[in-house]
Amino acid sequence: MEVQIAAAKTNKYAVLESGDTLEVVERPNGGLSVVLADGQTSGRGAKAVSMLVVRKVISLLAEGVRDGAAARAASDSLYTDKKGKVISTLNIISVDLETGTVVLTRNNPAPFFIAREERIDCIASASSPLGASRNVRPVISEIPIEAGLTLVVYTDGLVHAGERTGQPMDVEISLKAMLEGQDPAPQEIADALLNEAVHLDDGRPVDDISVVVLRVLKRRGDDVRRMTVRVPISVKG
Amino acid sequence: MEVQIAAAKTNKYAVLESGDTLEVVERPNGGLSVVLADGQTSGRGAKAVSMLVVRKVISLLAEGVRDGAAARAASDSLYTDKKGKVISTLNIISVDLETGTVVLTRNNPAPFFIAREERIDCIASASSPLGASRNVRPVISEIPIEAGLTLVVYTDGLVHAGERTGQPMDVEISLKAMLEGQDPAPQEIADALLNEAVHLDDGRPVDDISVVVLRVLKRRGDDVRRMTVRVPISVKG
Repeated sequence: MEVQIAAAKTNKYAVLESGDTLEVVERPNGGLSVVLADGQTSGRGAKAVSMLVVRKVISLLAEGVRDGAAARAASDSLYTDKKGKVISTLNIISVDLETGTVVLTRNNPAPFFIAREERIDCIASASSPLGASRNVRPVISEIPIEAGLTLVVYTDGLVHAGERTGQPMDVEISLKAMLEGQDPAPQEIADALLNEAVHLDDGRPVDDISVVVLRVLKRRGDDVRRMTVRVPISVKG
Repeated sequence: MEVQIAAAKTNKYAVLESGDTLEVVERPNGGLSVVLADGQTSGRGAKAVSMLVVRKVISLLAEGVRDGAAARAASDSLYTDKKGKVISTLNIISVDLETGTVVLTRNNPAPFFIAREERIDCIASASSPLGASRNVRPVISEIPIEAGLTLVVYTDGLVHAGERTGQPMDVEISLKAMLEGQDPAPQEIADALLNEAVHLDDGRPVDDISVVVLRVLKRRGDDVRRMTVRVPISVKG
């Protein structure tokens, strides 16, 4: 099999820096984890918060700490640092080759989607962000790694897209249409959802938006790991 | 402008795990860093070493520590941990938006290439791996961020490719041919170099090979950050 992950990320309109942080890291016992955090508010302050959370999580995962424990630790750390006044959402998607499962750890009111072939489930159980209090617990879903699996995880910019114009986005309908189509690449799915959200916000996103799509597929081609990153930049000074 | 980064990575023949570790992280003051380490020997032991080095470096970069200082700290940390008996190479490629430069930090006897349009420079100054002694210093190159810049960095699997069969690889000639062609995407360059190396090793790489290509281009298209990762997996149990 092979795992393909794609992410697409954009900033709130007229804000230079996204408050979302997304990193992909290798797990010490095999596999990899995608860590996505959305810090409260937007711009530099939110970015500092989401980076703090992501750093904490990836340093714990690197030590072999389990995902749920890493999420709790990041929550306590944020709570201690900001005295409960600043919150952050967190999603961890781990492909754990030791257990043969995908583990989804979620401290985010925004739901996520699991699709197996063309059946789509929306996981929308109540889930609190990190940092609001002591005893914040993540909601954890664990599913076997199998070919045909698609996961879609996002920050609340996607949830709120279109609300201003009275045309809220329906992620499930969009995803269903894509999965019924021509076996889309994860990057096509992520880009299409992001583009739809930006379009519903009239080209001026009301919040930072990040979309992550993970697909498990039958092995196609060689044994080479590949990664590409594309970042628009403006050089200061 | 925009930055495009691509990586291609394969394992030594018949070894399950690559001893190379590669991560891409955001810099706290803007921009991003690619961190690549190659731990001594191959398989699990080498992987643990290269992960240790990469984790140390990215945690320091996240705190705002400069790249050279992070490399020295990782060396001292490895030296202390392994008593000077295990070494690791390290390359850090940072797109630093604060200074408007690309900073290349190198503790790796393998050279790297800087191409501006079609002019190619091979940077092959003497450079020692981390962990062999106290006082290991990185070799640092700093160049302005400008459209048309291409950087190619790799681990020694590429250097030694073909030596067994008496046909050593000439990275510069291959790179030159590609850059004279049709404006190749970074992933095409990384894949072509990796494929050539594997071919010269008769399809059985004598060492782990990682190739990283970074290009700075005029802005093409939208303001969306994108990332894709492709990982072949075998589920245990």
